[in-house]
Formats: sequence, structure tokens, C-alpha cells
Amino acid sequence: MTKTTTSPTPARGPAEHDVRDQIVAAATEHFSRYGYEKTTVSDLAKAIGFSKAYIYKFFESKQAIGEMICTNCLAEIEATVVAAVEQADGPPEKLRRMFKAIVESSLRLFFQDRKLYEIAASAATEGWQSTLAYEQRIQALLRDILQQGRHSGDFERRTPLDETTMAIYLVMRPYLNPLILQHSFDHVEEAPARLSGLVLRSLSP
Amino acid sequence: MTKTTTSPTPARGPAEHDVRDQIVAAATEHFSRYGYEKTTVSDLAKAIGFSKAYIYKFFESKQAIGEMICTNCLAEIEATVVAAVEQADGPPEKLRRMFKAIVESSLRLFFQDRKLYEIAASAATEGWQSTLAYEQRIQALLRDILQQGRHSGDFERRTPLDETTMAIYLVMRPYLNPLILQHSFDHVEEAPARLSGLVLRSLSP
Repeated sequence: MTKTTTSPTPARGPAEHDVRDQIVAAATEHFSRYGYEKTTVSDLAKAIGFSKAYIYKFFESKQAIGEMICTNCLAEIEATVVAAVEQADGPPEKLRRMFKAIVESSLRLFFQDRKLYEIAASAATEGWQSTLAYEQRIQALLRDILQQGRHSGDFERRTPLDETTMAIYLVMRPYLNPLILQHSFDHVEEAPARLSGLVLRSLSP
Repeated sequence: MTKTTTSPTPARGPAEHDVRDQIVAAATEHFSRYGYEKTTVSDLAKAIGFSKAYIYKFFESKQAIGEMICTNCLAEIEATVVAAVEQADGPPEKLRRMFKAIVESSLRLFFQDRKLYEIAASAATEGWQSTLAYEQRIQALLRDILQQGRHSGDFERRTPLDETTMAIYLVMRPYLNPLILQHSFDHVEEAPARLSGLVLRSLSP
């Protein structure tokens, strides 16, 4: 939760990253206790013992802090998914593991902590840069598995790769998006196996 | 919008259906103007010129009226979907049309009228009988097309029919459920073709 991967404001000195990390860590703690929507930057400044002006030196708005927390959350989900895919043998099993890891790690991160989920929901509603970038990286990972499977002869090559990638992404999307996921609880048990089974049948050469 | 297909309370006489229809028609009109959540049975009684006691003679609660409106809305979507499927030649084309008709008619009915959408959202959140029955009928229609396709040799027969039906239903579900559909606007253009293409590839013998 404390990795900082991008810096939306220009660098101001060697200690910049450390202070940003410190603010993000404190804000994550504070939001997860009191909620994102209800907290102002003033509340946050008071709670973590910095001046409001000092926080604004590093983040231009509450959303900028939220974006960073969201980026970190999504990076954690993505790392779990990438690890699951890497550990699997062969493209079909990689795809199966990808479905399973997406559902499990999205559920874990978004719903263990209802208050952080609020940030993810804002991000998904408002199309924040952090979620768009995450969606693109998931699509890239998917395309990569598909390309490996075409190369190994496990998957068919007749359908254009872009079309296959987008179609499978649309099948995964309800389980990636936190706003949709909350309406799919009745199906999260069976969905990964059922959907990856269907997708693998659609890919047979 | 005025068809009444089921009657949850026992019949009370020959004019019963007419009065029930009249209440449902007036309530549909009233809810679609002022919203479902904000309207009480008293408001409704006053607006349509019946006594509250008279309305309670026919419906035990506001939800019972909402259920009937929801049943009618869903019956309309279902009729459109069934008609689209019937007009299509052969199981693969029937499946393609089913996806297209579900997305188009759900969008039309739920989002042309934002206030009636509120009823559908309550129904989906609270798992009303009307939506559960609708989901089951859509699953039955899907299973029927799959069975026809297995019989005609268009679709594979290795996977158990229940498994195939459930997997394809899970792919359709985000476009059937009004709460999920509202988060999928960016994809409704391409989704029917992409998803039915994928599903048909998964069904090839």
C-alpha cells in the first residue's frame, strides 16, 4: 500500500518521495477509518499533524491523494494477478488463473475494507486516470497470454487478436470493476471456473 | 405496460382484474413522473382519486404495486427478446439476436424513463420475485436455443448443457441487470457483437 509509482507534480527535491509516501500512508489510514467522501483536506491535515498548505505543496487536491491510494490498491491487485499468471504452466492455465486471481483479489481488497472501497467506487464512477491505466494494463496482460497461446498452438488464430482480447476483457470486466462487482456476489463462487471454461472453449484451435 | 399477467392475491370477483389494471396503470404514470421511492400509498391514492383503503383491498403494499409494474416492464423486454429470437433463422443467429435484443431493449426501457428505472433498481437490489422469475425465463430461453443448436449440429455437445447455459447466462447478466447496465454504457455499442462472437466460438462443435 505504500509504493509510489508515479508523481503527478514536478519533483521538488530528494526528500519529495518520502514525504509524499508519508502523506499517502497517513491518508490511507485516515480514509479507511473515517471514509473518503466525508473527509476534507483540512480534516486530513489536522489528523496527520501537517499543515494544510504543506499537504497542498505535494498534492493539488483530495482527489490527487485518492488517486495515489487507488493506484496503490490497483497495483497490489495487479501484482497478485501477474504473480498468479506467472506461476501457471502454459497459456490455458494462465488464463484460468487470471480469472480466478482477478475475482479473488478484487473481492479481498475492495470488500475487506469498506472505506477504501469508497475510493475505488469514486475512481470507477469518475473514470480516474488510475483506473483507466489499470484497465489498460489488464488488457495488455490478457493480450500477452493470448499471443503466447497462439504461438504455442493452444489457441485459434482465425479471429483478429484485438477482437479476441476485447471480447474476453468484456467477460472479465464485471469482476474488475468495483461498482459492478458489488452486484455480483451471488455469482463470484462459480463465475471464474464457468467463465474461463467458456473462454477456453472459444479459443480452441 | 398495462398487461397483467399474474395475480398474487386471490380473485375477488369478475371486475377484480380491471381495477387492478387501473391501479397499476395510474401508479405507473404517477411513479414515472414523481419517482417510486418518494411516493407513498397515500400520495398515490390521492393522485389517482381512490381511497387508500380501496388500494389496499387490491395490493398489500407499495412494493406489491411496484412488483406488478416491474413484472410488466420485464414482460415487455422479454417479449421483445422472444420476438427477436423467433424471427432469426437457426440457433447461431438466434443467439446473436438474443444478445442484441437484451442490450437494446433493456437500455430502452430502463433508461428512457429514469423514474421507472428506480423501480427496476429496487427490484434488482432487493431480489424481488418479479426479477428472479425474469432471470429464470431468460435462462430457459437460452437453454432452449442451446438445445436446438445441439440437435441441429450447430453447437458442440461435450460440455454439460447446464454448465454451458450458466456460463453464457453469466456473460449476458451484466446487460440484463439494470444496476450493472448503468456502469456499462461505454461498452453497450460493441458488447453484443463481441460477446455473441465469443460465445459462438465457444459453441463450435
